[in-house]
Amino acid sequence: MSKKIVIVGGVAGGATAAARLRRLDEESQIILIERGEYISFANCGLPYYIGGTIEERSKLLVQTVDRMEARFNMDIRTSAEVMKINREDKQIEIKDLKTGEVYHQSYDHLILSPGAKPIVPPLPGLKESTYFTLRNIPDTDRIKAYVDEKQPKHVTVIGGGFIGLEMAENLADRGAKVTVVEKGPQVMAPIDPEMAAIVHEHLREKGVELILGDGIASVNEGDVVALESGRMLDTDMIVLSIGVQPESTLAHEAGLELGARRGIIVNEYMQTNDPSIYAIGDAIEVQDYITKEPAMVPLAWPANRQGRIVANNIYGKNEAYPGTLGTSIVKVFDYTVAATGVNEKRMKNLGWKYEAIHIHPASHAGYYPGAESLAMKMLFNPDNGKIYGAQIVGKDGVDKRIDVLATAIKGGLTVHDLPDLELAYAPPFSSAKDPVNMLGYVAENIIDGAVEITHWDEIDEKVNQGDLVLDVRDAKELDQGYIPGAINIPLHDLRHRMEELPKDKPIHVNCQVGLRGYLATKLLRLNGYDARNLDGGWKTYSVANGVKKPQMV
Amino acid sequence: MSKKIVIVGGVAGGATAAARLRRLDEESQIILIERGEYISFANCGLPYYIGGTIEERSKLLVQTVDRMEARFNMDIRTSAEVMKINREDKQIEIKDLKTGEVYHQSYDHLILSPGAKPIVPPLPGLKESTYFTLRNIPDTDRIKAYVDEKQPKHVTVIGGGFIGLEMAENLADRGAKVTVVEKGPQVMAPIDPEMAAIVHEHLREKGVELILGDGIASVNEGDVVALESGRMLDTDMIVLSIGVQPESTLAHEAGLELGARRGIIVNEYMQTNDPSIYAIGDAIEVQDYITKEPAMVPLAWPANRQGRIVANNIYGKNEAYPGTLGTSIVKVFDYTVAATGVNEKRMKNLGWKYEAIHIHPASHAGYYPGAESLAMKMLFNPDNGKIYGAQIVGKDGVDKRIDVLATAIKGGLTVHDLPDLELAYAPPFSSAKDPVNMLGYVAENIIDGAVEITHWDEIDEKVNQGDLVLDVRDAKELDQGYIPGAINIPLHDLRHRMEELPKDKPIHVNCQVGLRGYLATKLLRLNGYDARNLDGGWKTYSVANGVKKPQMV
Ligand SMILES: Cc1cc2nc3c(=O)[nH]c(=O)nc-3n(C[C@H](O)[C@H](O)[C@H](O)COP(=O)(O)OP(=O)(O)OC[C@H]3O[C@@H](n4cnc5c(N)ncnc54)[C@H](O)[C@@H]3O)c2cc1C
Ligand SMILES: Cc1cc2nc3c(=O)[nH]c(=O)nc-3n(C[C@H](O)[C@H](O)[C@H](O)COP(=O)(O)OP(=O)(O)OC[C@H]3O[C@@H](n4cnc5c(N)ncnc54)[C@H](O)[C@@H]3O)c2cc1C
Ligand SMILES: CC(C)(COP(=O)(O)OP(=O)(O)OC[C@H]1O[C@@H](n2cnc3c(N)ncnc32)[C@H](O)[C@@H]1OP(=O)(O)O)[C@@H](O)C(=O)NCCC(=O)NCCS
Ligand SMILES: CC(C)(COP(=O)(O)OP(=O)(O)OC[C@H]1O[C@@H](n2cnc3c(N)ncnc32)[C@H](O)[C@@H]1OP(=O)(O)O)[C@@H](O)C(=O)NCCC(=O)NCCS
Repeated sequence: MSKKIVIVGGVAGGATAAARLRRLDEESQIILIERGEYISFANCGLPYYIGGTIEERSKLLVQTVDRMEARFNMDIRTSAEVMKINREDKQIEIKDLKTGEVYHQSYDHLILSPGAKPIVPPLPGLKESTYFTLRNIPDTDRIKAYVDEKQPKHVTVIGGGFIGLEMAENLADRGAKVTVVEKGPQVMAPIDPEMAAIVHEHLREKGVELILGDGIASVNEGDVVALESGRMLDTDMIVLSIGVQPESTLAHEAGLELGARRGIIVNEYMQTNDPSIYAIGDAIEVQDYITKEPAMVPLAWPANRQGRIVANNIYGKNEAYPGTLGTSIVKVFDYTVAATGVNEKRMKNLGWKYEAIHIHPASHAGYYPGAESLAMKMLFNPDNGKIYGAQIVGKDGVDKRIDVLATAIKGGLTVHDLPDLELAYAPPFSSAKDPVNMLGYVAENIIDGAVEITHWDEIDEKVNQGDLVLDVRDAKELDQGYIPGAINIPLHDLRHRMEELPKDKPIHVNCQVGLRGYLATKLLRLNGYDARNLDGGWKTYSVANGVKKPQMV
Repeated sequence: MSKKIVIVGGVAGGATAAARLRRLDEESQIILIERGEYISFANCGLPYYIGGTIEERSKLLVQTVDRMEARFNMDIRTSAEVMKINREDKQIEIKDLKTGEVYHQSYDHLILSPGAKPIVPPLPGLKESTYFTLRNIPDTDRIKAYVDEKQPKHVTVIGGGFIGLEMAENLADRGAKVTVVEKGPQVMAPIDPEMAAIVHEHLREKGVELILGDGIASVNEGDVVALESGRMLDTDMIVLSIGVQPESTLAHEAGLELGARRGIIVNEYMQTNDPSIYAIGDAIEVQDYITKEPAMVPLAWPANRQGRIVANNIYGKNEAYPGTLGTSIVKVFDYTVAATGVNEKRMKNLGWKYEAIHIHPASHAGYYPGAESLAMKMLFNPDNGKIYGAQIVGKDGVDKRIDVLATAIKGGLTVHDLPDLELAYAPPFSSAKDPVNMLGYVAENIIDGAVEITHWDEIDEKVNQGDLVLDVRDAKELDQGYIPGAINIPLHDLRHRMEELPKDKPIHVNCQVGLRGYLATKLLRLNGYDARNLDGGWKTYSVANGVKKPQMV
């Protein structure tokens, strides 16, 4: 059964769909239309080529037209833009960007994988300035040439999302002083503020200037960036990375339905409201795996996955896409930042009942060199233990734990199952209780009522109301700072000194990470005190509150 | 309700149980009896302290008696050996190893966590020689002192299990020439021979002499080790690591039931046949999570997990231990070797229907520096996709993938779910299709009948029977060697050269890792050829068959 299948967009989603289509059927006619000069390139590698980590440009070209055609017998047309979809006649209008010629092409099935493009706001002076966005090979060539030639001393990156931070790092690697300007109160939207605070600290440590809660207003002569606050930045280069918008105009003009954020709406089989037209990748609106709400997740895994599913469905496999969990990860200098599922900001918006915990276990056995502290956060349903999401920031072992948690979520495991995950342990890799096991223990104790916790953003208010803070760290650890008003009784001495504490008011126990605090809380509760553990301990509290130096009582 | 709980063995299982017991109840009397001088030490770190990777001895002592007593109010007795259990009177007999005094101690609940000890065969001459086993701190001190002082030029390690290989590496790090003698045909029993072959190659590359299929027969004067084959090894030090046996004599003498391999038999609540006596850790027989057969898995995760469960159960929580999956990992010089679930050797013994696949994906995006090839094997049920086990050998990202697979197994996911795992992707960490996704794709294609495969250990016979081997690698890749009799048509040319191939006999397609082979197989099948893909490609075939240099046709 020979089909004529036309694909718009020849990179992550489109090329994957094309390859899979051919593996399902030798007879079909597969036509891949790509506006750019290249297909199948490594979008995700672009910042690292600019920074010099990836040395050879050719490595960015995962597949070439020649090889794809030879392997898969397809008709690949580059520098060709699809201008219009004529659904009635099942035809598209294509413009050959080299010759300017416009011609028609019929299809039985049309797959749209046009991606998303960087948002460029219509700011005064921007157009005339030297600004850059990054999406494809020509963008990359342009940025690289500029950096090679002009060696900018100062770069302004507008937007603290993952592409912005990757650009910040890679341009810093090239010797530039970088300022990141982010309109929101934090970088890396997928994670919550107290987790992002760790990233903020690290960026500053690495010499990146970070301006939060401010946006670009205009660009003045001589590349002076004026911020909304009135602040002026004298810069040599502007990188715009404030987000992407779906390339959905073509679809929209053809009468295909778009969502609120202009993503193409598809059903679980990746079909638009026209059953002959499928859409995948950055251009579509997906369903959030956890909340079942519409979401836009412009990442490579979904594009690749959907590319294969769409090919299968064209061949009648009726494969459903189960929604996107939004697992994401980014390297930020020495740190790795990762998330999966829903964050607390979203939970609050949704108004769902949830509990949030923070732990700071070592990435592997503490006695084996190289162990690094992981900041881990997990959100879950305190009634049934369902895992809503997780976030991890750290220097080592972050990717492993986020993948285990993403797998647990897809396996329908609850926090009660996490202690039972039998993960691989030898000293260079983990601990006999893996950090993910530990998340399970800590969550389970809360659900079981074995311990009550106080959150980092609640404690100050409680103290103001007259509650007590007990710090069970050793005296010398308090040099790092402590919660104002805290009483210090090291855990080691607590057993024989607990009479010093009042039984008639709430005691919030603080330690470095929450472990000793938990032990102290248990001890006190079992002895009749009204004790609660400060979730995440001093580490979470201090970074979240931006505590820099020891505070005085 | 005050209980008197006595624990035998104060390290992984015992100390964990003790700590948890106190967190459940402040009233109980907790008595921890440990034969050695130390409790709570890092058994798993011992080899690395000997090798110098862990520099401070104090790091091996995770907890001290003093700190445990202060934190948890327990009665900890070290250098105290439990000699006898008197079940009638609920009493044990304890020998104070410092004074020689023997006394009695009553209990309400008894927890046995006595661990396992290295097997020392009664070999002629062994006793009189300088041989070592490694289990605890004194053993470590003894080995370290010997190495520091004598600086052995040659060390013979008997046994190629994980402790043997860790010792080989660490003693090599100390400058010794190491010979590993292993009775079986391979090191690292949890993995299958073709996976172990990679480890063999690496050990030899690192200068370790590996003698397989030979055992120690006796030790002659001047530390000359005589092997069963008659071969003599002139050595300066002998490390015995041929396995461990449960410390179950005490239990046995008290009438507690033992299994075939002398592990203490417990029910799912960790209870022996005497309901007041529980047993955990290396000393017990567990149920294999997959096969439900009895198994002995002397690893730290199970001991820690069971320690917590037993404490819970003493307090009526009725928590069941779901069996042991046997997830394990070890660093072998630059490689990591990991496994979870059942291996192929065991599958064959069981006579279960299974399929085995091998893939060699990169640990992260190939275009980002530092990507290393992973050798992955997965075993599954070809009818319903149930995952039986997995093995991974590689230099990077091994621990992550084995943990994801172990989690998938515990989540009851099948191979059909693996492509849907939404794992974290950015170039430094993975690929848009993670290696675990890829395992799912490859397995699913076999189950769906989309491709047939030939295994590395079947191909030679097929060729002898007259089948054809088609090698679709580029001509220059054949310099590494190829399967005798193979015809070479690079994938790039296959489409227009396939008429050169016969349609009337089976064609086994080979490439480097199985990916191009798969593409060629699909192409040929869809064009009417009887093609099958060589699972794992040349990489699996060549290492499994010990192919060293190019073979001539
Ligand atoms: C700098 C950068 C770094 C990234 N890093 C990561 C990362 O680390 N991890 C991650 O998961 N994701 C990352 N991404 C996102 C990832 O690359 C995208 O999610 C993925 O490529 C989306 O696939 P797609 O097929 O939807 O779109 P694309 O891969 O963008 O392909 C769309 C193609 O369609 C073409 N096209 C559009 N309209 C037309 C038309 N009318 N006619 C013809 N052709 C058309 C475009 O030219 C484009 O080449 C990164 C993206 C960028 C830009
Ligand atoms: C060198 C080495 C490296 C290892 N590496 C790893 C690794 O990387 N990963 C991993 O998962 N596992 C590893 N293990 C195994 C892990 O340490 C054990 O599985 C774990 O310690 C078992 O816990 P347990 O409580 O059963 O026994 P143990 O931790 O061995 O504790 C048993 C204790 O009981 C005491 N005892 C025994 N009999 C009596 C008695 N009659 N009276 C009083 N006390 C008694 C013993 O002296 C001993 O201290 C390693 C083990 C060794 C020796
Ligand atoms: C290059 C590209 C066209 C490849 O698409 P693809 O052929 O679907 O993907 P892969 O090369 O990873 O191969 C996957 C196929 O090989 C099979 N396969 C992989 N390894 C195998 C092995 N060892 N043995 C057998 N089969 C194997 C898989 O089953 C799958 O086939 P299937 O879909 O028919 O089941 C596409 O991934 C692409 O354009 N990538 C670059 C763009 C991009 O993704 N950018 C964003 C990230 S930077
Ligand atoms: C040291 C040892 C006694 C500790 O036992 P433990 O107290 O059960 O274990 P941990 O210190 O890891 O703490 C775990 C407890 O703290 C809690 N916890 C951990 N981190 C926490 C945090 N950040 N916030 C709150 N609670 C936390 C856990 O919930 C758990 O308590 P629970 O069992 O009551 O739920 C024991 O692990 C041991 O002896 N280890 C060395 C021997 C060994 O394991 N050898 C083999 C490997 S080398």
